[in-house]
Amino acid sequence: MARTKGDHEARRREVSEAVWRVLAAQGFGGLTLRAVATELGATTGLLTHYFPAKRDLVRHALDLLDARTTSRPRRAGGPGLAAVRAALLDILPLTPEATASNRIWVSSWDTALADPGLSEDHAARYARGRARLAALIATAQERGELPAGDPGRLAAGAQSFALGLVVQALLGPADFPPERQRELVDDYLAALATPAAPEASAAPEASEAPAAGS
Amino acid sequence: MARTKGDHEARRREVSEAVWRVLAAQGFGGLTLRAVATELGATTGLLTHYFPAKRDLVRHALDLLDARTTSRPRRAGGPGLAAVRAALLDILPLTPEATASNRIWVSSWDTALADPGLSEDHAARYARGRARLAALIATAQERGELPAGDPGRLAAGAQSFALGLVVQALLGPADFPPERQRELVDDYLAALATPAAPEASAAPEASEAPAAGS
Repeated sequence: MARTKGDHEARRREVSEAVWRVLAAQGFGGLTLRAVATELGATTGLLTHYFPAKRDLVRHALDLLDARTTSRPRRAGGPGLAAVRAALLDILPLTPEATASNRIWVSSWDTALADPGLSEDHAARYARGRARLAALIATAQERGELPAGDPGRLAAGAQSFALGLVVQALLGPADFPPERQRELVDDYLAALATPAAPEASAAPEASEAPAAGS
Repeated sequence: MARTKGDHEARRREVSEAVWRVLAAQGFGGLTLRAVATELGATTGLLTHYFPAKRDLVRHALDLLDARTTSRPRRAGGPGLAAVRAALLDILPLTPEATASNRIWVSSWDTALADPGLSEDHAARYARGRARLAALIATAQERGELPAGDPGRLAAGAQSFALGLVVQALLGPADFPPERQRELVDDYLAALATPAAPEASAAPEASEAPAAGS
């Protein structure tokens, strides 16, 4: 067993890696002390030293997921609308690594919804994500690339769209290959970027729409 | 114990009701034979008669969720774009009952992603949902309420948007009260309904769109 601080840190890292591999393979639904012990080739007794209760294991797993997500490489998106596009693409399961991470995020929702404290943590996390997106949207508006409107409200719509696309792509990878996901993001942004015709926003009647090409 | 067919059916219904209550309270993550037995005031031994393995319990729970979702009352939406709007609102957690049902759906994703068979069932289920939405979108296009474009592709975007909004609203109900959810749906549909300006659209379709009202 670990005798020095260095050994102890190394052991902690091994435990964390084992937790991560269990999450990646089975999601939060399969995250148990026994599964981590098996992955680690250790006893569950050893693990209770690190995680006295199941909730400690879950919280550690969420922290790991958070750290991995925060430290992942991001797409360079330039300023304005290109940055909004890059931020949305960063959310999606376009690579095997992003797929694994998203698969864990989706599975965390069940765990979070069963625990008010974890649920609030999650709500705060997504609110921070919307705030970051809103700042990018505000810049795109200043550059004239997006029409005026509450950036927070536009961000809430865009984040909803991206999260739902994550779910669809994970459950139906054959129907949502990376190219399809990119197309849908571009469709979404194109619809957002189109200034609403005054007639369309004030009075939805088709007979008042402008003539094509005008 | 049940002696007649009627008794047996009644007992099955009681078991199903108990499964539903466990799901509603704890999601799929909390769905165990023991939890259902406790809810029912029965022994786990009795339950193994109905569900020999955990997977049988999960499949029964998914069937129940499916049946409840299919048989729920739907909004009347009129034809065209109003029907698309009604279909999206039907998905969202706008009422306590819809919140409970969505909470279970979200929790089912973790279970489904851990099991290829259940994952395929889920993918097929969402594909059917997109097909229904695509049919409504096609009608809205025929009525001139939505611009031209592949209805299946528009449906994939709209379903993504609605599912992601479900997730956000469940995790952050304070940030996404029903009125906010409706606003976001209306924002989404308004952006979709606005014909792309020729300069914003890469493809030349806009200049070939039929004159309004034609």
